Amino acid sequence: MRKVAIKTPSKSYEVFIEAGLRREIGRRMDDVLAQPASSVLIISDSVVAPLYLDEVKNSFSDLAVHTAVIEAGEASKSFTVFEQLLTKALEAGLDRKSVIVALGGGVVGDIAGFVAATFMRGIRFIQVPTTLLAHDSSVGGKVAINHPLGKNMVGSFHQPEAVFYDTEVLYSLSEREWRSGFAEVMKHGLIRKPSFLTWLQTTISSLESIPVEVLDELLEQSIAVKAEIVAEDEKEAGVRAYLNLGHTLGHALETKLGYGKLTHGEAVVIGIVFAMRLSGKLCGLSANVDDYEKWFQRLGYDTKIPAHLQADELIETMMKDKKTEGGTIRMVLLRSIGEATTMTVSSDEIKQLLVEQVEVD
Amino acid sequence: MRKVAIKTPSKSYEVFIEAGLRREIGRRMDDVLAQPASSVLIISDSVVAPLYLDEVKNSFSDLAVHTAVIEAGEASKSFTVFEQLLTKALEAGLDRKSVIVALGGGVVGDIAGFVAATFMRGIRFIQVPTTLLAHDSSVGGKVAINHPLGKNMVGSFHQPEAVFYDTEVLYSLSEREWRSGFAEVMKHGLIRKPSFLTWLQTTISSLESIPVEVLDELLEQSIAVKAEIVAEDEKEAGVRAYLNLGHTLGHALETKLGYGKLTHGEAVVIGIVFAMRLSGKLCGLSANVDDYEKWFQRLGYDTKIPAHLQADELIETMMKDKKTEGGTIRMVLLRSIGEATTMTVSSDEIKQLLVEQVEVD
Repeated sequence: MRKVAIKTPSKSYEVFIEAGLRREIGRRMDDVLAQPASSVLIISDSVVAPLYLDEVKNSFSDLAVHTAVIEAGEASKSFTVFEQLLTKALEAGLDRKSVIVALGGGVVGDIAGFVAATFMRGIRFIQVPTTLLAHDSSVGGKVAINHPLGKNMVGSFHQPEAVFYDTEVLYSLSEREWRSGFAEVMKHGLIRKPSFLTWLQTTISSLESIPVEVLDELLEQSIAVKAEIVAEDEKEAGVRAYLNLGHTLGHALETKLGYGKLTHGEAVVIGIVFAMRLSGKLCGLSANVDDYEKWFQRLGYDTKIPAHLQADELIETMMKDKKTEGGTIRMVLLRSIGEATTMTVSSDEIKQLLVEQVEVD
Repeated sequence: MRKVAIKTPSKSYEVFIEAGLRREIGRRMDDVLAQPASSVLIISDSVVAPLYLDEVKNSFSDLAVHTAVIEAGEASKSFTVFEQLLTKALEAGLDRKSVIVALGGGVVGDIAGFVAATFMRGIRFIQVPTTLLAHDSSVGGKVAINHPLGKNMVGSFHQPEAVFYDTEVLYSLSEREWRSGFAEVMKHGLIRKPSFLTWLQTTISSLESIPVEVLDELLEQSIAVKAEIVAEDEKEAGVRAYLNLGHTLGHALETKLGYGKLTHGEAVVIGIVFAMRLSGKLCGLSANVDDYEKWFQRLGYDTKIPAHLQADELIETMMKDKKTEGGTIRMVLLRSIGEATTMTVSSDEIKQLLVEQVEVD
C-alpha cells in the first residue's frame, strides 16, 4: 500500500492508496482514530451509492452505521442539502464522538466535510474519494457548499482523519471523468514539479487506459505535491493559492456555461492554457505554450473558449472570485514550469487574450 | 480602560472594557488588526440597531461600511437568516480581507460569528456585545445557529479579532436582561473562583442599580475566568465543559418552554440550583445550597421548575444535549465551590431530584 503523509498545523493524517480499500474502511478507520467512533454516518450520492455503499457499510462491525444518499451533481452542494444532512445527523443521534464518512467525488467530499465541520461545532470525518478529481479535493481540508452567487463561497478548513483512496473504483469512471481529474494532476506538475510533469508527458499519451502501476505512481506523486503545499500554507494565506492555477477562468467558464456542461477539469485546462499565455506576456514564462496545448488536445481536452461566451461576461464573473480583492483580478501565473506566482492583472490585459483564445467556428 | 487578554491556540486577542467604546470601534479596530480591513459589514438586530448602529457606523472613516439588521430574538439564529446574511455579504462585495462587526447580544454574536467563520472559508470578525449576557458568549469563539432539533447544533469555533465592550450600553437594559447575564457571572465564580463569588455575594444584593465601578470590576473578573478556561481548552475537549454548569437543564427548560419564556440566565440559574443539589448527593458538595438559592431569589430569580413541565420530557430533551454521548446524560457538577467536574448521571437520579425542585402551585 502507498501512503502520503499530510502535515498541517491543525492536523496530521495519511492518504492511503490501494486497490480494494473500500472493503476495509471500517477496520482501517479504527486504526487511524485515536479515540474510537461512537457511531458513523456515511454520506454518498445517487451514482456512487448503488455501486459501493453496501461494501463500505459492511466493512464496519460493532458500530451503529447510518447512511445518507444525496443526488449526484454540483447542485447538491446547496444550503438545502446541507440542512437536510444536518437533520439526518441529528435524527440518527450522532454525537461529538461520531465520524462522518464521505464516499464519493468532490461534491460529496465537500458537503459531507462541511457537515462534519459544523455539526456540533465540528466532528471527525474520513474521505473515501471515488473519482480521480477527488484525489485533489479530498486532501487538504477545504470543504464548502455553493452559493447562487458563487462556487464554494460558504465553507471551512476542516481536515479529515484520513483519506482512503481505492484505485479500483477509478476504472469504472468515464473518460470524461478521467480528463476532469487529470487536469489537477498536470496542474500539480506545472506549479511545483517539472520532473513529474515531464514523466507525465512521456508516460501518458491517452487517458483511455492507464495501467494500474502508472496510476498508483501518478496519484502518489500528485498528492505529494498537494501535501507539500498544504503543509506550508494550510489556510491559503500564500502558496496554497498556486493550486488555483487555471481556476479563475475555469470557475468563470463553469459558472457561465452552467455546472456540468464542461467538467471541472475540462474548464481548468482551458484556464491553464490561458494562464500560461498570460504568463508568457507578463512574467517571462519561456515554455512553448503551443506544445502544452497540443499535449492537452491529444489527451482529449478542448483548449478553446466556447465561441458564444462573451469576454466581458467572463471577466465580470472572474471579478467575483474569492481571490479577488478590491475589484482587481488576482491570477495564478507561471514564471517558469514548476514555479508559480500570483499577480494582479487588469481586465484589459485579460480581455485581449481571452478574445484570442476563443474557438473559431 | 480595562483589558483582559484571551490566549487560545488558534488566536490571541483582547477584550476592551470601557464606557462609550461604541463610538470608537472604527479607530480601535484599526489598532488591533494586523492587516487592514478592505471593507466592513456590521450585523445588528432590530432592537440594538435603532439605538447604536449609526454611532458605530460613523466611527469608521475611509472604509466601505455595509450594514445588515436581523430581527431581535433567538428565532433569528436560523438557517434562513444565516443564508440571508451570506447573500448580503456577497452582494456587498465582501472579500477575504473584509471584517464583520457583530453589534448586539448573544444572538447577533453567534450568527454573525458563524457567518464570519464560513464566508469564503472564514474571515475576521469583531464582537461588540451590548448585553451583560454577551460578556460571556462574545469571548471564546463559540459561534453557532440553532437547528429545530436543538440549540447551537450547527456552528464552529472561530475566535474574534477583539471584543469591544461598551459598559454604558448596559444601563439601557431591563432588569430581566441584567438577571440573564448575571447568571453567567455567578457561574464563573461557582466553577472557578470562590473569592470572586464571595465578593459578589457581599457586594451585589440587587440587580436594579449596579454602580459603574462595581460593574467594571465584575466584568473584568468574570471575563478573566472565561479567559483562563478558554486558554486551557479552546475546543471543549475538557475543562471548557465546566462553563456549562446549569446549562444541561437550562437548555432543556428553554427548549420545552419555548425560547423567550425564561431568559437564558433565568433558565441557567434553575439549572445551577439543580446541579448543586445533585452535587451534594453525588460528589460531596458540602456548601449549603439553600443559602445560595435564597441569594438567587433575593436577586429576583425563580429557582423552581415551572409546575406544568413533566420530568420525563425534560430528561428526554436533556438526552439530546451536545454533551450527551451514547444515550447517557453528562452533567457538570461541583465537588466544592470553585471546583467543577463532569459526571455521567442516570436518568433515574435526575428524575427524582427534578421532581423535588418543581414549583408548588
